[in-house]
Amino acid sequence: MTAMDSTFAALLARMQELKDLSGVIGLATWDQETYLPRKAEEARGEQLSTLQGLYHERLVDPRLGELLSNATPGDADQRAMMLRLSEERDRQLKVPGRLVRELAQVQSQGLAAWKRAREAKDTRLFFPVLARLLELRREQADALGHDGERYDALLEAYEPGMRVARLMPVLEALAAKLTPMVAAVTARPPPADPFAGKTFDPEAQWRFTMGLLPALGFDLEAGRQDRSVHPFTGGTHPFDVRLTTRINPATPLPAIFGTIHEAGHGLYEQGFAPPHHRTPLAAAPSMGLHESQSRLWENVVGRSRGFWSHFYPSLQRAFPAELGSTSLDVFVGAVNRVERSLIRVEADELTYNLHIVLRTQLELSLLRGQLEVKDLEAAWNEKSRVLLGRTPAHPAEGVLQDIHWSSGELGYFPTYALGNLYAASLFAAARRQLPGLEDAIARGELSVLREWLREKVHAQGYRLRAEELVTQVTGRGLTDEDFLASMRARHQL
Amino acid sequence: MTAMDSTFAALLARMQELKDLSGVIGLATWDQETYLPRKAEEARGEQLSTLQGLYHERLVDPRLGELLSNATPGDADQRAMMLRLSEERDRQLKVPGRLVRELAQVQSQGLAAWKRAREAKDTRLFFPVLARLLELRREQADALGHDGERYDALLEAYEPGMRVARLMPVLEALAAKLTPMVAAVTARPPPADPFAGKTFDPEAQWRFTMGLLPALGFDLEAGRQDRSVHPFTGGTHPFDVRLTTRINPATPLPAIFGTIHEAGHGLYEQGFAPPHHRTPLAAAPSMGLHESQSRLWENVVGRSRGFWSHFYPSLQRAFPAELGSTSLDVFVGAVNRVERSLIRVEADELTYNLHIVLRTQLELSLLRGQLEVKDLEAAWNEKSRVLLGRTPAHPAEGVLQDIHWSSGELGYFPTYALGNLYAASLFAAARRQLPGLEDAIARGELSVLREWLREKVHAQGYRLRAEELVTQVTGRGLTDEDFLASMRARHQL
Repeated sequence: MTAMDSTFAALLARMQELKDLSGVIGLATWDQETYLPRKAEEARGEQLSTLQGLYHERLVDPRLGELLSNATPGDADQRAMMLRLSEERDRQLKVPGRLVRELAQVQSQGLAAWKRAREAKDTRLFFPVLARLLELRREQADALGHDGERYDALLEAYEPGMRVARLMPVLEALAAKLTPMVAAVTARPPPADPFAGKTFDPEAQWRFTMGLLPALGFDLEAGRQDRSVHPFTGGTHPFDVRLTTRINPATPLPAIFGTIHEAGHGLYEQGFAPPHHRTPLAAAPSMGLHESQSRLWENVVGRSRGFWSHFYPSLQRAFPAELGSTSLDVFVGAVNRVERSLIRVEADELTYNLHIVLRTQLELSLLRGQLEVKDLEAAWNEKSRVLLGRTPAHPAEGVLQDIHWSSGELGYFPTYALGNLYAASLFAAARRQLPGLEDAIARGELSVLREWLREKVHAQGYRLRAEELVTQVTGRGLTDEDFLASMRARHQL
Repeated sequence: MTAMDSTFAALLARMQELKDLSGVIGLATWDQETYLPRKAEEARGEQLSTLQGLYHERLVDPRLGELLSNATPGDADQRAMMLRLSEERDRQLKVPGRLVRELAQVQSQGLAAWKRAREAKDTRLFFPVLARLLELRREQADALGHDGERYDALLEAYEPGMRVARLMPVLEALAAKLTPMVAAVTARPPPADPFAGKTFDPEAQWRFTMGLLPALGFDLEAGRQDRSVHPFTGGTHPFDVRLTTRINPATPLPAIFGTIHEAGHGLYEQGFAPPHHRTPLAAAPSMGLHESQSRLWENVVGRSRGFWSHFYPSLQRAFPAELGSTSLDVFVGAVNRVERSLIRVEADELTYNLHIVLRTQLELSLLRGQLEVKDLEAAWNEKSRVLLGRTPAHPAEGVLQDIHWSSGELGYFPTYALGNLYAASLFAAARRQLPGLEDAIARGELSVLREWLREKVHAQGYRLRAEELVTQVTGRGLTDEDFLASMRARHQL
């Protein structure tokens, strides 16, 4: 333990208080999605709003500003803690309370309008609110400050340090390379569907996923898994990480890959270094880097033939009647099926990034004012045709499919694609640095990879920006090369 | 809705914030006892301590004091809300922070020392800390203020308005009347034990208790039941009331009566009037009155022959092999067995209050300085002999059996006895006011009683003091007459 300046000690107590509050917000949110009685939904909304109000109040407290100005960090980690807290605090201070309240109000109208519009398949029920949300987001971006590109200011909330000028060339080049690959793979006869017409007992699915978690190294004494309608990772502390999964009796894939995906997020949270606990360093540097961990485990590892050469026999034992006569190759083919889907959340690994490019281009054009909301549906449908090769029949399977824009969230979508690219690059680096890694995975020995990720990524917390950390680990920054190489290998392209 | 003065509106927002915070403390506590991963115990302690610190800080905030001084209540309920909040705030303000911190520290030493002492069956490991806790409690009582009886100041935390001068004569007269009744009942041959040597499937027990809850009128859309080591009632809001139960495979009684007991608490919480939600009126006037509801359902209703004449067939269906040949009379006899037990938490309805009189007399003497800690074990054993007719073989089944004194909690024990007395008086009043009540119960129609309690007790919230409310409902205040009459009837005395 570094000797601690007394002002820094007071600052640390404030950091711990803020982290505890956000942990409790995490608990109330987790509970809302898992165990909250139906009639308590409004009460929980009020409780969460009270907690968020207190968090905000404590963050912008002038006394915290004084401590941040006067404390002397004892080492590089303490310096980083102060930097991260200052960044968060400065962002909060820049946006006037009036705008925060108006945004919250219009966001809540937006959510209700979007639900009605999606139900009625009619964009006119939502687009007027979206136009208002865009105005408010422009105001917010201007309040936060930017170098002429408002989107940068919004992106900063999800992917600190990332800029449009860095992001868009990567995403657009990626799209150009993916389009012919998708065409080539979808021109082949589709793989067999070994699940069609079968029922997979939900309890057996649950047990199988609960067996996967320790195999992946998720510590069930420092976390848990429950069920929810939409799977997510939450919790209150690195020793209290909570995953959820959902079970579909018609196919075991959502439960299996949902569990592996969330376990990837969960391993990140469990892997924060104990000296970082209850400080701003117990955090991922970005949503994209967090997503890289879920996608690395779900896709890079979890859809590999090697992984299933070890785990498939136990899945067959869980479903002897349903999968006993399905070969490993048929199963692995099915979990890597490529399809031109209209729906992002159902998209496979190869087409997924195209869904992201579509959304990122559109939201950037909207924010810049290059695209008007009245033209958004037509623009979506045209891009869908070009990028995905399919045009939505109605907006519920097109421009209204995702919840993000209902609250005017701009800048979130690209983090999914960044997650895919970082995942591939991190795995490629692991393969270079860990000889025999793929053989170990094929023996079900996942600890080599997990411990490497823990040391190189998780235990680093929020010391560095995402791309700085990836560069430190892989020797190169954001690139699509490793992702494309992995896709070429998996689909024999 | 009453027209609202703008200062009162600001005050109401503060009340709601405080109630939301205490709701979230309730969630974090519930979670700690049900779903928290093992390794997160310390982190949860820190989170709870942060939340409690914020609650305290908001309660003593001078701005809240100004609002309380300046707001104009629009009606009697608003006036009552202000009164209750002022009472709570004044109590917090009276005790110096130095004393609060020292108490917390010595309480935590006390808990650890008590556990070691109970384990080693050696009071010397705990009594020095108890002596220090008594000193601090005397200091606390003096800070809070009293009319020469420090115990009154402590009692106020659990049973506002109750005084030693009112309580002790009632408890001591009750003990005098109970002693010969216990002697008479225990002189009879004990009832048959229909559970001995059998195993009761935990899942079937769980399902039976989950079926009891709606029958009792507990709303499972505004609450839930889970399992925990020590059953309790918690939650975050009247629409989010959380019960727990524990299951013992050797006998179904702990799960059944635990569930009914906690459901009694839960019905109280669910029954607060919606206009009182998120205000200080959504609270019971005292622990004793809260306990009256759990004991009314558990003992007065739940151990009656009428109740089981309706519910016993479904219990037999749940356990056909185990209870199929046990008659209703044998079952009802077993759930009303009277025994001279040394352990309070295992005591039956008839002997329970004797355990309370023992503890209340001792803790009062300790606080007054009439009894020294070094003589406490001998005093306990002597009182146990006189009141219960048995002497503990060692302190783990005597003076060290309960957790309460480990944190120097004085004044809590008598609320259990008050609960018993109030329960009997409320049920007697219900019987007078609701003709045919016992026939309805024997038909499994519990809603008549529940709705009566909701109107007369639950929906009153914390408008009145406990004894005032009981007087309003029953026409008489605290008395042992109804309790004794009920015991005479049940045990044919």
